[in-house]
Amino acid sequence: MRLRKKPWAEPLIKASSEFIVTKPEEYQSKWQTRFSKKAPIYIEIGMGKGRFIIEMAQKHPEKNFVGIELQTTITAIALKKQLGLRLPNLQLIRANGSGLNEYFAPAEVSGIYLNFSDPWPKKRQRKRRLTYRSFLKQYKEVMKPEGIIEFKTDNRGLFEYSLVSMNNFGMFFKEVYLDLHESLELGKENVMTEYEEKFSKKGQPIYKIEAGFTPRSIK
Amino acid sequence: MRLRKKPWAEPLIKASSEFIVTKPEEYQSKWQTRFSKKAPIYIEIGMGKGRFIIEMAQKHPEKNFVGIELQTTITAIALKKQLGLRLPNLQLIRANGSGLNEYFAPAEVSGIYLNFSDPWPKKRQRKRRLTYRSFLKQYKEVMKPEGIIEFKTDNRGLFEYSLVSMNNFGMFFKEVYLDLHESLELGKENVMTEYEEKFSKKGQPIYKIEAGFTPRSIK
Ligand SMILES: C[S@@+](CC[C@H](N)C(=O)[O-])C[C@H]1O[C@@H](n2cnc3c(N)ncnc32)[C@H](O)[C@@H]1O
Ligand SMILES: C[S@@+](CC[C@H](N)C(=O)[O-])C[C@H]1O[C@@H](n2cnc3c(N)ncnc32)[C@H](O)[C@@H]1O
Repeated sequence: MRLRKKPWAEPLIKASSEFIVTKPEEYQSKWQTRFSKKAPIYIEIGMGKGRFIIEMAQKHPEKNFVGIELQTTITAIALKKQLGLRLPNLQLIRANGSGLNEYFAPAEVSGIYLNFSDPWPKKRQRKRRLTYRSFLKQYKEVMKPEGIIEFKTDNRGLFEYSLVSMNNFGMFFKEVYLDLHESLELGKENVMTEYEEKFSKKGQPIYKIEAGFTPRSIK
Repeated sequence: MRLRKKPWAEPLIKASSEFIVTKPEEYQSKWQTRFSKKAPIYIEIGMGKGRFIIEMAQKHPEKNFVGIELQTTITAIALKKQLGLRLPNLQLIRANGSGLNEYFAPAEVSGIYLNFSDPWPKKRQRKRRLTYRSFLKQYKEVMKPEGIIEFKTDNRGLFEYSLVSMNNFGMFFKEVYLDLHESLELGKENVMTEYEEKFSKKGQPIYKIEAGFTPRSIK
């Protein structure tokens, strides 16, 4: 996602420390203190403008959510929405997901969402893909043994790569969808992201995998 | 594949014991004796009318091939082709793939092809799918440690199921294609099957996975 830098973004983030963190390592193992209630924590890496994580937080008051985004302007757009809503179970982080194991303690996270992650199509860029093994290693470190990663994308190359990468890392597949909007069973929840709406309107299939790091996670 | 029973099929099979076997258990650990040269053995389960396995045998004289098919009439159609060609590196079996570990000895097989296997879409039929775990167990028994299964299908539900089943069985993914004819690198061999031609002409994506039972198999 490319957006022109907005001059108001950085000051807004600075002024909104109730809802957003830019030094997430300071909260490692203390994330529960930032929410009104103690509850399992679910994170999204690369939340973009925040539509998905905000709707999840609204639908699931029994869970706590953390949205992580690298780009300042995009993070600030998500923050604006949260400043209007003031959801007590949603916190934002402006930081690079590659530092995840410094931001969260082992087993501090109950589930991870990756939605329409940047594809980095060139082979020499594959270490930047959020399903490259160095990222998977970090997800495993911070997640509870029964935790699940839910990954959605429209990008065929990225999904092909991710299936192989997650399998080779030793992950356990729970569910794979090769055309999510066609094959979703009635009644199963699917909260749309900005990109998902755009690409599915064009008729492109949406791919999804749910997978964990232990046999228990897929029971 | 449904075909009317042809009265000539059974007699033709009986008269062609040079190229076809109906009691494959009699050749367990002795398959090399049925070929003109000793060479690694590759099998296809559910070969249909045999287009794929015949073309493979023509293209790879340095390998031996065995095509297995359950239905008598369909097997006889493949046999007719082979009687015209008399390829020295191709043998056929009319039998149910579910007995595989009685037909072949451990490590007698170097690779397995599954092409457009019957989808058995109902959940209660899943034990009949050729990627159900009881089948995978047999493939593992008869295959060399470095052997690979190559599985192609147009059926989304079967492929979704197979990715999860193969992963949960502990298989190692080497390559996944979610639109084979789009994403195949130039120069990589792809021998078409009857069903593949039919479905890809309709514009449907062809799915493919290459996977093995040991880390060595995907190197
Ligand atoms: C293609 S957008 C998708 C946004 C949103 N998830 C959606 O589905 O609409 C990917 C987002 O991930 C962010 N991103 C990429 N790499 C990241 C990383 N290492 N850490 C945090 N965010 C990242 C990008 O800045 C971008 O906003
Ligand atoms: C849909 S057809 C595909 C034929 C061919 N492989 C192709 O791609 O054109 C599947 C074939 O597998 C055969 N088959 C199904 N189950 C089998 C089994 N358990 N053992 C052997 N053959 C089987 C069927 O009889 C049928 O001919």
